Amino acid sequence: MDFQHSPRVQDLQQRLTAFMNEHVYPNEHAFNQQVKEQRWKSPAVLETLKAKAREQGLWNLFMPDANYGPGLANIEYAPLAEIMGRVFWAAEVFNCNAPDTGNMEVLLKYGTEEQRQRWLIPLLAGEIRSAFAMTEPAVASSDATNVETSILRDGDDYVINGRKWFITNAMHERCAIFIVMGKSDPDNPNRHLQQTQILVPRDTPGLSVARPLSTLGYYEEPGGHAEVVFDTVRVPKENLLLGEGRGFEVAQGRLGPGRIHHCMRLIGAAQRSLEFACKRVEGREVFGRKLSQQGSVREAIAVMASKVEMCRLLTLRAADKMDSEGTKEARDLIAMAKIMVPQLTSEVLDMAIQMHGAGGLSEDYFMAEAFNYARWCRMADGPDQVHMMSLGKQVIRQYSN
Amino acid sequence: MDFQHSPRVQDLQQRLTAFMNEHVYPNEHAFNQQVKEQRWKSPAVLETLKAKAREQGLWNLFMPDANYGPGLANIEYAPLAEIMGRVFWAAEVFNCNAPDTGNMEVLLKYGTEEQRQRWLIPLLAGEIRSAFAMTEPAVASSDATNVETSILRDGDDYVINGRKWFITNAMHERCAIFIVMGKSDPDNPNRHLQQTQILVPRDTPGLSVARPLSTLGYYEEPGGHAEVVFDTVRVPKENLLLGEGRGFEVAQGRLGPGRIHHCMRLIGAAQRSLEFACKRVEGREVFGRKLSQQGSVREAIAVMASKVEMCRLLTLRAADKMDSEGTKEARDLIAMAKIMVPQLTSEVLDMAIQMHGAGGLSEDYFMAEAFNYARWCRMADGPDQVHMMSLGKQVIRQYSN
Amino acid sequence: MDFQHSPRVQDLQQRLTAFMNEHVYPNEHAFNQQVKEQRWKSPAVLETLKAKAREQGLWNLFMPDANYGPGLANIEYAPLAEIMGRVFWAAEVFNCNAPDTGNMEVLLKYGTEEQRQRWLIPLLAGEIRSAFAMTEPAVASSDATNVETSILRDGDDYVINGRKWFITNAMHERCAIFIVMGKSDPDNPNRHLQQTQILVPRDTPGLSVARPLSTLGYYEEPGGHAEVVFDTVRVPKENLLLGEGRGFEVAQGRLGPGRIHHCMRLIGAAQRSLEFACKRVEGREVFGRKLSQQGSVREAIAVMASKVEMCRLLTLRAADKMDSEGTKEARDLIAMAKIMVPQLTSEVLDMAIQMHGAGGLSEDYFMAEAFNYARWCRMADGPDQVHMMSLGKQVIRQYSN
Amino acid sequence: MDFQHSPRVQDLQQRLTAFMNEHVYPNEHAFNQQVKEQRWKSPAVLETLKAKAREQGLWNLFMPDANYGPGLANIEYAPLAEIMGRVFWAAEVFNCNAPDTGNMEVLLKYGTEEQRQRWLIPLLAGEIRSAFAMTEPAVASSDATNVETSILRDGDDYVINGRKWFITNAMHERCAIFIVMGKSDPDNPNRHLQQTQILVPRDTPGLSVARPLSTLGYYEEPGGHAEVVFDTVRVPKENLLLGEGRGFEVAQGRLGPGRIHHCMRLIGAAQRSLEFACKRVEGREVFGRKLSQQGSVREAIAVMASKVEMCRLLTLRAADKMDSEGTKEARDLIAMAKIMVPQLTSEVLDMAIQMHGAGGLSEDYFMAEAFNYARWCRMADGPDQVHMMSLGKQVIRQYSN
Repeated sequence: MDFQHSPRVQDLQQRLTAFMNEHVYPNEHAFNQQVKEQRWKSPAVLETLKAKAREQGLWNLFMPDANYGPGLANIEYAPLAEIMGRVFWAAEVFNCNAPDTGNMEVLLKYGTEEQRQRWLIPLLAGEIRSAFAMTEPAVASSDATNVETSILRDGDDYVINGRKWFITNAMHERCAIFIVMGKSDPDNPNRHLQQTQILVPRDTPGLSVARPLSTLGYYEEPGGHAEVVFDTVRVPKENLLLGEGRGFEVAQGRLGPGRIHHCMRLIGAAQRSLEFACKRVEGREVFGRKLSQQGSVREAIAVMASKVEMCRLLTLRAADKMDSEGTKEARDLIAMAKIMVPQLTSEVLDMAIQMHGAGGLSEDYFMAEAFNYARWCRMADGPDQVHMMSLGKQVIRQYSN
Repeated sequence: MDFQHSPRVQDLQQRLTAFMNEHVYPNEHAFNQQVKEQRWKSPAVLETLKAKAREQGLWNLFMPDANYGPGLANIEYAPLAEIMGRVFWAAEVFNCNAPDTGNMEVLLKYGTEEQRQRWLIPLLAGEIRSAFAMTEPAVASSDATNVETSILRDGDDYVINGRKWFITNAMHERCAIFIVMGKSDPDNPNRHLQQTQILVPRDTPGLSVARPLSTLGYYEEPGGHAEVVFDTVRVPKENLLLGEGRGFEVAQGRLGPGRIHHCMRLIGAAQRSLEFACKRVEGREVFGRKLSQQGSVREAIAVMASKVEMCRLLTLRAADKMDSEGTKEARDLIAMAKIMVPQLTSEVLDMAIQMHGAGGLSEDYFMAEAFNYARWCRMADGPDQVHMMSLGKQVIRQYSN
Repeated sequence: MDFQHSPRVQDLQQRLTAFMNEHVYPNEHAFNQQVKEQRWKSPAVLETLKAKAREQGLWNLFMPDANYGPGLANIEYAPLAEIMGRVFWAAEVFNCNAPDTGNMEVLLKYGTEEQRQRWLIPLLAGEIRSAFAMTEPAVASSDATNVETSILRDGDDYVINGRKWFITNAMHERCAIFIVMGKSDPDNPNRHLQQTQILVPRDTPGLSVARPLSTLGYYEEPGGHAEVVFDTVRVPKENLLLGEGRGFEVAQGRLGPGRIHHCMRLIGAAQRSLEFACKRVEGREVFGRKLSQQGSVREAIAVMASKVEMCRLLTLRAADKMDSEGTKEARDLIAMAKIMVPQLTSEVLDMAIQMHGAGGLSEDYFMAEAFNYARWCRMADGPDQVHMMSLGKQVIRQYSN
Repeated sequence: MDFQHSPRVQDLQQRLTAFMNEHVYPNEHAFNQQVKEQRWKSPAVLETLKAKAREQGLWNLFMPDANYGPGLANIEYAPLAEIMGRVFWAAEVFNCNAPDTGNMEVLLKYGTEEQRQRWLIPLLAGEIRSAFAMTEPAVASSDATNVETSILRDGDDYVINGRKWFITNAMHERCAIFIVMGKSDPDNPNRHLQQTQILVPRDTPGLSVARPLSTLGYYEEPGGHAEVVFDTVRVPKENLLLGEGRGFEVAQGRLGPGRIHHCMRLIGAAQRSLEFACKRVEGREVFGRKLSQQGSVREAIAVMASKVEMCRLLTLRAADKMDSEGTKEARDLIAMAKIMVPQLTSEVLDMAIQMHGAGGLSEDYFMAEAFNYARWCRMADGPDQVHMMSLGKQVIRQYSN
């Protein structure tokens, strides 16, 4: 047992922290201003920082394949993602933001050479953005077999019809490609062979982005979460990912790392809110004493610090098991992290907000938006309950024999 | 003991419910659209509904003085406010929204005849809106003695300097009058005689509304919560409320009913979210079964219903004690309601959101905005912790003898 | 709406409180000593107090039938049961303890004249004790249709075979009569006609009390909770309650008031623990300050007081609905009280324990045993989950139409 | 980072688990029976198992000094203590039970050669038991400077007067030695030089064990937690530990590992309760379905498993920091474990109890007693609140600069 990160990781931690201090925190206000002015355009400050990060080699850190990035294991990436998570939009500075990361992994793993050339290369360069269109308003899409969008073969093409929502990045003006999940064979008796995933370029006729959707009042510009309509959208069969009927397989491949990356970042947000809270209570007086001298405040800070550390350790352990035994074997720990981290970090953020008074809920601090992030992560790849159900089932099977 | 509402109240409940069904719920979408188009203007639909409500005698129901309204006791008003609380902006339809209600009570109780003529009458008519400027960014204003804004005598005038924030209604284009709390005698050894409250018309030179502030991403148009600057604002001494040095006394007078009205409304929001959740789980299938047939969903609904009922009873009991023994005597029950209701209703709302999936966090349902309402109510007239501290102190005194 | 108790109830509250002060609290230590010496014998102090209480007319207060007691409604009895609940064994002083109260109600409602003469009259006089034998170790007895004990007709007798456990009072030397639930017609297609309830005198051959069972280390002498074996126990058909196959009907009749009485008493225990906590924190110093001056302690006391009040109001409301609309109609509020009160009062008791340090967990204070009481009440007539499931189902039906 | 235990630890885990399976679990009932018959005598079964464990080299595993035991680091001992914790009394089988472990460490670290010969050697051999007398009924002893027992020099002796309680092991017939904490210099301006620790043999005149104390109804035979009176107890100055006035220093030395060992064992208890719960819900049917098929049960199991894992990781991390940076540097993580583990494991145990129905609270399962263990651990070396306060203070200092 050893809780020390490797020298390489420690070096990256230091460089990332330095970058955040020098370039990201000082630009939080500018970022907010720029997206207010042009909501769905990549803000100039973001593009500047992306260039700087790339120059410094702080780029595509998430990418496990050493041909396309630093080739870090999950356990190595976790502490870096934590640092990025301290600012909601910072992951993109390092080209490590969802769902582009998942889409890049999918293209790398399942894409044809041509698909990679056309979409993966510019994504790795941070030049375009991408979306993953799975969730539908009409059905409980956490059960993938419920998906109703149709992807039907017609000659050498596929024709797509359906309605999706909460499609992250779809509002972004640079969003060039959608990975769409739908049903090609709804009557297949094997429910896991009914689905297909296919690539749909943004400008394909029939694809329309209907509106941005908010969560707790946030639109999360410039990527947003959009409602998207596919009305007789036609793409060539070369756009298939992996093959007709293999959409479920592709979907499974991306789930593990996905919400775990969210967990890593949420820990950074919670850790930062703990630090903000400490500074706040030290600098604020009520009824004649510093907040930091009040017992209830100290108790609250202790609980916050403990929760952050528990989340961190649980996520690191999940990452470690993914690395050593594979995503499938690690699904118990992945589920634990998915269940616990968004919940506990949202509690930490909520307490930090409360210590900041009304201002804590406003745009003057990062915590309210981070709370929104933690909150929607409780649904991001299926609601908590789905992860609890399947973890519970697995644990019962394991111990009841 | 009798938990039955009087026939008069039951009649009002029915009429209010009918009004909500006929006029308010069908216009929720229109309201949202109109404030999107003109953020700080009273939306046309609201003005239309106000006129209708007034016609039907569903107007100023909060007003305890029978000369200016129906003269309902708190226990009679509570179930009506609950109904209004089912839609975030509905209280204003019936001219029962904060902080106008508190300001009207203050003007009635402490205003001069001239002040009443000029401000109270148009407020009662719903023609103008008003703000209460107490909270400051620089100090913990839940401790009123911390307030730093100065209100200093200069000849026959008072001159006001300071910065306030989270001033509800200040963004509203019809907001005509500010009640401002500040210090006229900061060195008075009696800390409760240092403050003064004074009326400042919106168009007084030196008063500038700096910016709207969001809470959890919401700006709550058209009233908003604004940052307001008072830069050498000069008003005649006739604008004093009650008298120089009596600001603390005036402030105390409004605190009881204030957050209790919020509690009443939050119960309505929570109750409605429970009803939405029931409909949702009955109409939604996952993994082959209706959500409503799953044990964990039933358990969650049971807990939600129980929490709503506990909040309702606690708030009614607080209202009852206010009526029968006065606000001062009832401060223990008022504090209990203030502590428990925003917390428990936000838990109910959060569970209802979760049952709605990602959509539950969006503008397609009322719950996310209601969650924001419950959340900021935990700070509305001082953070939970302040109420807990003073209730705890009182209870210890009561039982430790 | 009126939260005032009637003059009659107020008078009884005062007299009960005076009795507790004068006779019960001063004898808590003596009671504990006496049951240590003779575990399953009614302690002398209890018998003395019973006689006193009966003399003062503080007797059978639970009894709704005015021919056999004061004839109080549930809403009138609730505040009295709360007072009794302040000492774990005090209800029996007033002949208001479970399960004798439920058994008396059952005998009154469903017993023959002869059954009443033989068992009800001495029970009402507090001369004998009784048990209700329903729960079985082998099956989930919260689902009454699972019960496996057989009660089979054999000539003019019924023959009983089975094993029961957690049979309260069965250890008591004066326990003279068991009401036994079992199956007379296990194959009846109507699952609610399979059960029968029958009276079994303690000394019937084949009935053996196997052992006392503890809950959290407590044996709750002198009544205890026992494992009881029925091995070819034969009783005449005259011992049937209501009739063969009507056991489920009889069971339903007792459920409502049963756990609600527990709720009422738990509120008393929690209220008393709050009062103890207040005295404790006022009299204890740590790190140079009274505990009562520490913010976290004040916050905790505030939360405790709020929870007690919410439990009280919820239970009163359930009692009120039982009185005005009947037990069946009131099953939603009864379920809410059953779900919430044991949970919340155990939280209050736990906090009071913590404030007392290690001693709080010991026999030197009443809180630890009261915590055990609250804990087993979470299973007393079916685990919380069963009540949540059925309340959830009912609420969903109510609101999803 | 590496979450793998070393081969040596894995081997010990296997051997310990085999020992538990073969010798401990099959004797749980026998142990309970034997202590019922002779409460304060070491049960025969325990002595037999101790001999077996010693033979197998599973002895004194806690002992960090390789001259006296296997010399395991905390991170190595943690997973072994977890296994022991699965049965409440199993630690003693391996001579790893509190407070003997702490006393042995103190004697090793601070004892003279003579003290070690007389007390440490037989303790290491498991021949005698020992007690640590610190907590007092009259004062908040979590603040060591409150201790009131006096230890005063009189010629070549020290004379001890005072009253202690919750002195673990004091009831044990083999308890031969008390380490007593008291004040030798109550007026010393340096509050940390007022205390002294001294060795008092059990048979010293004036030392009387007044009574056993229960926690939640448990007496935890055969060691118990006793009230002990020191009435003019006279011991020679050679019995001093480390030196007069250095009692605080000695106390600090034992605090770190102490409650952390409790944490390790509690994780074992919680893990076992999770396993029991899984078996139970798989084997139990309610309302026509296995409990294991009900969504709410699966969700509960998932939460239990997650909490156990979080506790395990947090405790391992604390152990790791103790090993690599020392107890003092690790006090933040030690405090986190102390705060979180007893709380979370008691929640897990409570859920497992609930899944077992009433039986879950009884002596037929291990969970109720384990719940009691978790509960009193929340006070074991000072209440949770004390650890929260000091952790909060430390964290604020760390981040507010």
